[in-house]
Amino acid sequence: MSTNSSAAHASTHDLPGVTLVGGGPGAWDLITVRGMRALQEADVILTDHLGPTDELEKLCDVSTKEIIDVAKLPYSRQVSQEKTNELLIEHALAGKKVVRLKGGDPFVFGRGHEELVVCRDAGIPCEVVPGVTSAISVPAAVGIPITNRGVVHSFTVVSGHLPPGHPKSLVNWSALAKSGGTISVIMGVKNAAAIAQALIEGGLSPRTPAAVIQEGTTEGQRSFRCDLETLGETFEKENIESPAVYVIGEVAGL
Amino acid sequence: MSTNSSAAHASTHDLPGVTLVGGGPGAWDLITVRGMRALQEADVILTDHLGPTDELEKLCDVSTKEIIDVAKLPYSRQVSQEKTNELLIEHALAGKKVVRLKGGDPFVFGRGHEELVVCRDAGIPCEVVPGVTSAISVPAAVGIPITNRGVVHSFTVVSGHLPPGHPKSLVNWSALAKSGGTISVIMGVKNAAAIAQALIEGGLSPRTPAAVIQEGTTEGQRSFRCDLETLGETFEKENIESPAVYVIGEVAGL
Repeated sequence: MSTNSSAAHASTHDLPGVTLVGGGPGAWDLITVRGMRALQEADVILTDHLGPTDELEKLCDVSTKEIIDVAKLPYSRQVSQEKTNELLIEHALAGKKVVRLKGGDPFVFGRGHEELVVCRDAGIPCEVVPGVTSAISVPAAVGIPITNRGVVHSFTVVSGHLPPGHPKSLVNWSALAKSGGTISVIMGVKNAAAIAQALIEGGLSPRTPAAVIQEGTTEGQRSFRCDLETLGETFEKENIESPAVYVIGEVAGL
Repeated sequence: MSTNSSAAHASTHDLPGVTLVGGGPGAWDLITVRGMRALQEADVILTDHLGPTDELEKLCDVSTKEIIDVAKLPYSRQVSQEKTNELLIEHALAGKKVVRLKGGDPFVFGRGHEELVVCRDAGIPCEVVPGVTSAISVPAAVGIPITNRGVVHSFTVVSGHLPPGHPKSLVNWSALAKSGGTISVIMGVKNAAAIAQALIEGGLSPRTPAAVIQEGTTEGQRSFRCDLETLGETFEKENIESPAVYVIGEVAGL
């Protein structure tokens, strides 16, 4: 019913839109089949340093796509997210099929919901493709099951980007120490020692098994077993850098 | 170095072995690329009623595989797992490439670690391919992010197969109520009312948003929004059956 023959799309709702794709923990083939197909159909792919970014050519013909590395945008982290949002909207409004490729799962500390809301507010169709989260799959890559029958019936995934006691922290570390479940921390490299201390103060035994895995599922994977008391010094001694996951609980001793 | 020409494999360590594959929440294309390739290379696939079982033919040429539905084995649940283990070993020792296709992720309440140990004890190579867990992806399928910036910095995934207070329960529901994070319960259809009550007694507001999703990501998907106080009656009124996920926390109101 469009009266303007030059308009490819009568409204933003008819645009190909944006797909937020969970790229998984790092290995290229740990993306979902649906995620791979979204990459193959995309005109524009916005990536960062997480997920299967380094091996995109194994998933799709990159020569036919515009690849934008938003991790390299010359802005501070905060502004960079705003710029990412702008790029999503700009390319989607130009009629491009846009994929925002994210590490892990888009809704696990990935600011995926913010990007979804930005698209919806602009009237742009937006789909979310879940991914394999690093919090579970990275421990698995070194043989650690996040749950195990008879040992644990729950697990908690925590963002460690704020130290315990930080005014903006929304985590009750003392309650987590008493939860009875495995604790998997992502984005917590800087605060590892403080988090371990908070969990010990909350009642977890300093002898609780722990494991640290850097760059899990990729060629750069390194892992270390320790316990809650030595977690902080393990980070220091081994020069652990992001991205890393640490897992605390009986399963880390399996 | 084998002196017996009729022996295809000098030792069990040379066998093609077993791959435990996380099949994801249900939709056929939410398996990982690595998982799909394992299915394509398999001689024998052991499935149950979870994951992409109903649409296996979209992932591999099923006519070339032996498909064994272990959910239909004529045994009680407990014995069925033992029989599953026996079948894994039996086919692997016969030199077959075996895939054990599981719902969600093999290490999230999937008894995956038990199967891994059984294979290793038999000297059979065993690999684990992680999967998209229902605990995160099923809420996502109805637009609920398990985390959201500024709202929540952690989430806990709980098996609800035992009611609060059960002597074998390893979950401290009172501590979880105080954790400050989202709570996602799987395998908890029967105990939904009791779990909601335990969380309220632990200090969570009865007005805390909640959502129930049955058969998430599949054609049979049904979902209902409620709050913690009305969670139990929602299950009853809507006749919710397994598999279902329920999510409790501010994000369920988004």
